[in-house]
Amino acid sequence: MTDSRIVYSPIGVIRSEHTIAANTPIQPVYAKGCKGRAEIIDAYSEGLSDLEGFSHIYLIYHFNQSREVKLTVKPFLQDVDRGIFSTRAPYRPNPIGLSVVELVKIEGTVLYFDGADILDGTPLLDIKPYTAKFDLHEVKTNGWQDEVDEKTAQHRGKRGYSP
Amino acid sequence: MTDSRIVYSPIGVIRSEHTIAANTPIQPVYAKGCKGRAEIIDAYSEGLSDLEGFSHIYLIYHFNQSREVKLTVKPFLQDVDRGIFSTRAPYRPNPIGLSVVELVKIEGTVLYFDGADILDGTPLLDIKPYTAKFDLHEVKTNGWQDEVDEKTAQHRGKRGYSP
Repeated sequence: MTDSRIVYSPIGVIRSEHTIAANTPIQPVYAKGCKGRAEIIDAYSEGLSDLEGFSHIYLIYHFNQSREVKLTVKPFLQDVDRGIFSTRAPYRPNPIGLSVVELVKIEGTVLYFDGADILDGTPLLDIKPYTAKFDLHEVKTNGWQDEVDEKTAQHRGKRGYSP
Repeated sequence: MTDSRIVYSPIGVIRSEHTIAANTPIQPVYAKGCKGRAEIIDAYSEGLSDLEGFSHIYLIYHFNQSREVKLTVKPFLQDVDRGIFSTRAPYRPNPIGLSVVELVKIEGTVLYFDGADILDGTPLLDIKPYTAKFDLHEVKTNGWQDEVDEKTAQHRGKRGYSP
């Protein structure tokens, strides 16, 4: 139907305190206070210019420990089977992860951020600014997530993590 | 440093009225009223369950018409050179595109959405729900975008598109 193979190479690697998937917070909102770093390959240094002025950035990465595809999963926040594309679970046909983290500072080619919900050693594919102009949308409905109260979400989303 | 080649395959294709890159709105916020479709491969049909309840979704796609990498670009909204990772321009080391669009309806394996800022024929890599719990962040600074007033952004962001 279109290009059948798309090949990417990491632009760097994520460093975090998370080494066990089952203990890793599922989203940055449940990982506040958890520090992470993105170590970028020197060759891309120039591309990091002007990034430090943004308080939040998207990290797009490869779930390299996800070894299987599941089209239906029980999401982390609820014990009900859901279509994979209605969740952020890693067992996706293309195991791409997306996190919005708070950028703390950049030193050389190392980005320091808060809200690390990513396993140590994860290959990084892209960085984009998250901005008020582009990324704040008026959400009307949240599908099955509207059935999950905030207390349950906080508890299950942290998966044992406490800052 | 990590896996050096990451291979993905499209899960479907984006259909829109946009056939010329230079006339395509740069973000969904500048493409309101512009309809698009995501046609998903039948094999992934099961993965679309439960998605229709979400008012907004992320589309993650491959900028297949981006033929070169530029580490510094003039962003669409401003005539000043900026590091590529501080912009959403397509000339990225891994040409991954990210749009938050409004989901209108799903019929079979076809998603209908509003806010199409994507070229017709673009390979789709992933779909994720955009949710109030996970994706609304308190933006403090927007780097160089804070220098662009809203009127200029609207004008330049639409690139001639009017619904």
